[in-house]
Order: sequence, then structure tokens, then C-alpha cells
Amino acid sequence: MRTPAVVVNFKAYSEVDGPRSLDLALTCQKVAEETGVSIAVCPPMVELSHVARNVQIPVLSQHCDPRRPGSATGWVTPSMIAASSAKGTLLNHSEHRLMLIDIQDTVAMCRSQGLWSIVCTDSVASSGAVAFYSPDFVAVEPPELIGGDISVTDANPDVVRDAVDAVKKADPSVRLLCGAGVKAGKDVKAALELGAEGVLLASGVVKSKDPYQSLLDLVKLI
Amino acid sequence: MRTPAVVVNFKAYSEVDGPRSLDLALTCQKVAEETGVSIAVCPPMVELSHVARNVQIPVLSQHCDPRRPGSATGWVTPSMIAASSAKGTLLNHSEHRLMLIDIQDTVAMCRSQGLWSIVCTDSVASSGAVAFYSPDFVAVEPPELIGGDISVTDANPDVVRDAVDAVKKADPSVRLLCGAGVKAGKDVKAALELGAEGVLLASGVVKSKDPYQSLLDLVKLI
Amino acid sequence: MRTPAVVVNFKAYSEVDGPRSLDLALTCQKVAEETGVSIAVCPPMVELSHVARNVQIPVLSQHCDPRRPGSATGWVTPSMIAASSAKGTLLNHSEHRLMLIDIQDTVAMCRSQGLWSIVCTDSVASSGAVAFYSPDFVAVEPPELIGGDISVTDANPDVVRDAVDAVKKADPSVRLLCGAGVKAGKDVKAALELGAEGVLLASGVVKSKDPYQSLLDLVKLI
Amino acid sequence: MRTPAVVVNFKAYSEVDGPRSLDLALTCQKVAEETGVSIAVCPPMVELSHVARNVQIPVLSQHCDPRRPGSATGWVTPSMIAASSAKGTLLNHSEHRLMLIDIQDTVAMCRSQGLWSIVCTDSVASSGAVAFYSPDFVAVEPPELIGGDISVTDANPDVVRDAVDAVKKADPSVRLLCGAGVKAGKDVKAALELGAEGVLLASGVVKSKDPYQSLLDLVKLI
Repeated sequence: MRTPAVVVNFKAYSEVDGPRSLDLALTCQKVAEETGVSIAVCPPMVELSHVARNVQIPVLSQHCDPRRPGSATGWVTPSMIAASSAKGTLLNHSEHRLMLIDIQDTVAMCRSQGLWSIVCTDSVASSGAVAFYSPDFVAVEPPELIGGDISVTDANPDVVRDAVDAVKKADPSVRLLCGAGVKAGKDVKAALELGAEGVLLASGVVKSKDPYQSLLDLVKLI
Repeated sequence: MRTPAVVVNFKAYSEVDGPRSLDLALTCQKVAEETGVSIAVCPPMVELSHVARNVQIPVLSQHCDPRRPGSATGWVTPSMIAASSAKGTLLNHSEHRLMLIDIQDTVAMCRSQGLWSIVCTDSVASSGAVAFYSPDFVAVEPPELIGGDISVTDANPDVVRDAVDAVKKADPSVRLLCGAGVKAGKDVKAALELGAEGVLLASGVVKSKDPYQSLLDLVKLI
Repeated sequence: MRTPAVVVNFKAYSEVDGPRSLDLALTCQKVAEETGVSIAVCPPMVELSHVARNVQIPVLSQHCDPRRPGSATGWVTPSMIAASSAKGTLLNHSEHRLMLIDIQDTVAMCRSQGLWSIVCTDSVASSGAVAFYSPDFVAVEPPELIGGDISVTDANPDVVRDAVDAVKKADPSVRLLCGAGVKAGKDVKAALELGAEGVLLASGVVKSKDPYQSLLDLVKLI
Repeated sequence: MRTPAVVVNFKAYSEVDGPRSLDLALTCQKVAEETGVSIAVCPPMVELSHVARNVQIPVLSQHCDPRRPGSATGWVTPSMIAASSAKGTLLNHSEHRLMLIDIQDTVAMCRSQGLWSIVCTDSVASSGAVAFYSPDFVAVEPPELIGGDISVTDANPDVVRDAVDAVKKADPSVRLLCGAGVKAGKDVKAALELGAEGVLLASGVVKSKDPYQSLLDLVKLI
């Protein structure tokens, strides 16, 4: 994924139920085309292939299970994601935590399928920890910033800098995304100046009354 | 779902990766049209909406999480399934077991979304147990028959009869599917004679070299 | 377990840390001896054998995993509970929910070890459901009453009556305990009149400043 | 814990059911006294306080849940372990895996209770990963050696050396235990020469016909 990258997590918001996931993905694509910024989208699980086959920007799964093809009813496998035309996956999101061993195994399985992996964490230590598995990205989401009104840079700029340092100590090739407290274009800019190579967004775009304008505002200083 | 019903679970078999899920769903639709038999399909999670929007037969999810719309990254919600044009879901499959309380809550949430629920079990007692939640169907899959070469009727016809009795004792409106040991048309016929109102199939169709012919053979005595 | 039965769940309250578990168990034993009421205690996991070997009243585990002896590091097996001198176990407590299949398997494993099982549920339907596995007791804890100030009999006496009916429909030999909303002796009496054969208590005794007097007050109308 | 350390995991083996856990712990204590080697024992959960109050050598829990005192029915809390007289706990054993975030939280909670933590892992990368949380020890158990007849030093001495390097890179104060493939005294010696500061043993002692002699043989070259 080209960086700086902006990843938009659609979650399971009612705003993206059904065909509206593709609508929002097309809006994100429009902003990517107009600004030249690298933007990826994570639609709800059941819409993944439908969105991935109808947009040109990278589409990512919101989650992946460490399961091989076969008798895995209801699970989401790396192989299934790859065949859907998606390019990668989030892992260990704060709303979908994984066992340590499953993070290890899923990152490795994704790599062998040519899928990018973005492992979410909630602390500097966990960011360093998962970097040992050499995922493409670590997305740090300090819990005190999730869903709140405080921006990551106002609150505690050290968490981004320290997370970059921890990640690079474990594996210099792994890149950091800032995954919470990004409310405005200036926060995106600040996150990049602190060493992040992108941001992970959700409600600020998905629940906006005007997602096109909100996303444009967020990426304009990149 | 009209009964007798034949439900085909695609699992995560590599035979249905990507666009091949829709191909197989169309094949199942062809058999349904030619024979008049009620056939439903359960594609992999990431293909759900793609398949559901392109076939006329009922499409079901392989799994559903008891989560409401909102911050539920990577989970599969009843609301999301309903919006995908699917008609219902499997629950508690032997490859994807659920907590008792989640079965209770998910069946209720599916009902309020107008979705059918098919709860899988592995025993007579569990079939009666989940029928207390009044799902549309219980699919009994005795573990000794899963994946084996023995048919449910040869092995132990009582398990079907007893499961029907247990289910009706808890809630007479709940219908039973026979979910394992169905290898040939005569097994489907026998299951129906024992009181089942349909069957849940997987590898016999999905991994067949000729799924059209295999499915036709299975439903021909209905 | 002789009925009517009063089961005291010590949970992980700091009031019973370390040696204080045995102290409280001895207090419960004193009340049992003085009143003749059947009282059982559920100490914290790590104190189980210590308490069970030092009191005469029945001691129960708070939880049990469906695991056999062997390579099961950190799990609590039926065999281990039996060898500790405890007489049975709670299962599926609202703070420790289990998969349906694990309730089924653990109840069966406990029975084969001669252990009583008390399966907790949160509704009439779930009470009927788990009774299909023929545990010794079902303890119904309606969520609206857990931890609150409303007693089960004031709030909704039907939930106890209906749970008894559901349980007996599935297996007439299974007995019901009332597991929430029991604040005073009159609630115990009312629960018994509604068809319960005992109660499951926790904070009212364990967090009381005078557990002896509190327990005495609770059992005095039995 | 004084190093080099030998930690004996009793698992849920039937050989240590009930009072036999204390018997084995006393045998281990005898070897510790006779040889001066630092030996710790991990009895089954329900025997923890009973063993911890009756031996002088360190007693460790086999597992710990990231739960605070209070409404945590059936869970094993750091506070409960500390109050039992045990000195620490294993975490994330291969038979009892944890979520990444729970490893992080439990290590921190154990530290604040004055408990040692030993986090088990199955690879070099995971050993480095969990060292970011600064537990007292990481115990690496390569899956190819668990339960087999191959010793860690014959099979692949690099795994121990590389795990030491990964751990020290994340936090130089964390020490490594070798947790699989230790069959004889020479394996213990070799593990220490490769940089491990102790070993984690199980069946070789617990399932031995003569645990005293087996443990003596294992520690004699330390």
C-alpha cells in the first residue's frame, strides 16, 4: 500500500448497510482520484467481494481468521479474502481482539497469500510486540482516544513517536498507522510528522453527513 | 423456507473461492428450477451479498454474531445479513460453536430482522435444548456421521426420530433438518420419512466433480 | 444435595481472599448446623481443595471446563474437582458463560465423576434448554435482577414459575434454584412457594458486615 | 525467582489428582534442598493454595485471568493467586492460549501484586513479542518438540539462542526458560549454555515412576 495511507474502516455502522457500502467506497475512490492520496476501505464482511470487485482503490477485510480452506464454516480465511479481490486485512481490532498465536499465524498466512496485514494495538508495548511478526502495518489506537473528542496530537504526541520507535526496534520494515484521535486534517498532518505513515479512520467519515467533504478535509494537508 | 428443504453449505472449500461461489449457487438454482425442490445455499462470508443479489433461490449466511449495528469491526450482524439480501443464517455449526446465551440472543435478533435461523446441534438433547429458542429449524449433525461414509439412516435412524420428538416437545413449530450422513437420494428420502423436513448438505455437492448431477441425484426422490 | 438448598457463591470478592474463604465456609457451616438447612459453598478456584478438606458441608466449584485429565494446563477438570473433595460445580454462570456443547459435555462428565452440576441461565427458555442435559439443578438468574435492589418475587414471580415449568417439561427430575433477586428471608420463602427448590446467593452474604447474621436471616423462614 | 530455575508444571495429570499434588511438591522440595537448585512447582488450579501453604519452595499458578477482585465467578485473578501464598503464574501456555491484550494486562496486574509471570511462547518472534511486556520470564516451547522424543539441543539449538536474542532486544531484563525438548540432565546443561536461565518441565517428572530420581537426574548438571 502506497504511503502515506488513509484507511477507512466502515465497521458495522448502519450507514453502510447493504448497497450503501459500495456507495461509500466509490466516494472514497473519488477523493483518492481527486487528491492523489492513497486511500483504502474496509467494508462490512458480507459486502467484501461486492465492493472489491467494483472499485479500483484497495479494499481490505475488517478481520481474518487463521483458517485454511476447507471445513471452516462461517470463518473468514486469508484464501477467501484473496479470492474476493481484496488486498489485505485488519487484524486484532479493538472490537475484535485475537489470541497472540492467531496474530502470528494469520499474519504469516496473509503474507503467503500476498495480502497486506494491518495489526491494531492499544499501546506502545503491543505495537513493538506485534512488529516481531513483520506485518505490513501496525495501527496504534490508544484506548483513551477511541471515540472521544481529543486528538492524538493534543493528548499525547509521545504515544505515536514511542510506538514508531518500538515498532522499528522489532522490525525496521514495519510501518505505523495512527488509529485514533484523528479528527481533522491537522491531526493527520501531525501524525505524519510524528513518524506515522498513515491513519486509520472510521466514524469521522462513515457517520458524517457528508462523507465526501469530511474525507477531503481530512486528507487535504497530506 | 418452503419444505422439504435442501440447504447446501459451501463452507470455506477452495472449490468455491471467489467468483466460483456464484457459479455454484447458479447451478443449485438450476436444479431448484428443474425439480421444483426448495434449495437454499450458504456461500462463504465474504461472498454473501454478491451471491444473494444474483440468484433467486434463498441465500443464507454460514454464521451470525449477536451484535447490533455500530462498532462491531469484523463481526457479522443480523442487520448486515438482512441488508445483503440473504434470507437467514446457520448458527452454531459444528465448525463454529457458540455460547448458549449467544444462540438465544442471535435467534431473537434474526427473528426481529425477518431472518430465518437454522441452529446446528450434535445430539438429541441439544436439538431439544435449542428448540426452546424457537428458531425456524434445528439441523442435527451426529458427530459419528460427519464426514464419514455411513448414512444417517443405516447408522441409527433413531437419532432423527428422537431429535424430531425432542424438538417438538420444546416447541412444536420448530422443524428438523438432518445434517449429516446424507450421501444419496435414498438417504434424503429416508430422512424425510423419519420426520425431518429437509437436509443440510456440504461436501457431497460442493466437492463433487459434477455438482449439478450430484445435487440432482440427491433431490430426485423428494 | 438435600433440598431446599441454599448455595453461597463466594465469587472472587476480596472479602474471601486467601484464608478468609475457609473462615466464611466455616461460618456457613455453623448456620447449617444450627438451623438444619442444607447450605453449600462455592469458594474461589484456588481455595477449592483447601476449603473442601476442612468443612463438612458440601463445597462446589464455581466453574468447570470440559477437559479430561492430562495436558490441560490451567483448566479445571471434573476429575480434579472430584479429587479435591468438592461435591459438584456451578456451570455457565452469568460471569462465565459456556458454549452450548461444553455445557452438554461438562454436565455429562460431572455425572460420570459423581459430581452435582448446577447450570445457571438467564431466562425461562434457557432454563428449559439446559434441563435437556439433565443436570442436578438449573439456577435461573434473570438479568434485570442481578445486583439490583428488586426481589425476584416482587418483580416478576412468573419467571420462577415459568422456569420451573420449562425445566420440568424437558426433564421432570431436574430441580430449579432461584439465583437472583433474593434479598431477605421472605424472598427465599416466596421462591420456594413458587416452585424453586433452593436459592443461589452471593453478595448478600459474602459482602455483608456480618455474614453469620445475614445468612441466618435469609434461611430462617425455610 | 533465583536462576538457573527449574519449573515443574503438574498440568492436569491424573498422577497429581487431589492430595498427590502436595506429595509431588514435597518431593520437588526435597530435591531442591538436597541439590541447592532453584525449583518451583505449578500444581492444578484447585490445589494451588493447599500446596502453597505447605511447602517452602515457590509455588506458581498454571494460569491467570486478567480479572480484578469482585464479580468474576470461576476466574483466577492475580489477587487470588497472591492471597493463596503462591509466588507467580504461567501465562499463555500452549494448552491455554490468551489474547494478546490479556497477556499485556495480566503481566501488568501480576507485577502490581508482586507476582512473577512466565509467559509461554512457541517461536522466536513470539518470545520477542511478549518480552515487550517485561514479564519476569519467557518460556519458549517450540511445537515440534512438545511431547516428542527429540531434545531441544539436538533438534535445533538456534531456537534457544535466537529466542534469547529476541527477548533481550525487546527488554534486556527479561530472562528465557527453555520449555520443551528437555529430556535429561545434559539437555538442561545445554539449554543453560545456549543462554536460557532455566527450564520448564512437565511429564518427564510428573509422569515418571520415580519423580524424585527423575528430577534429580535432570538437575544434577546445573
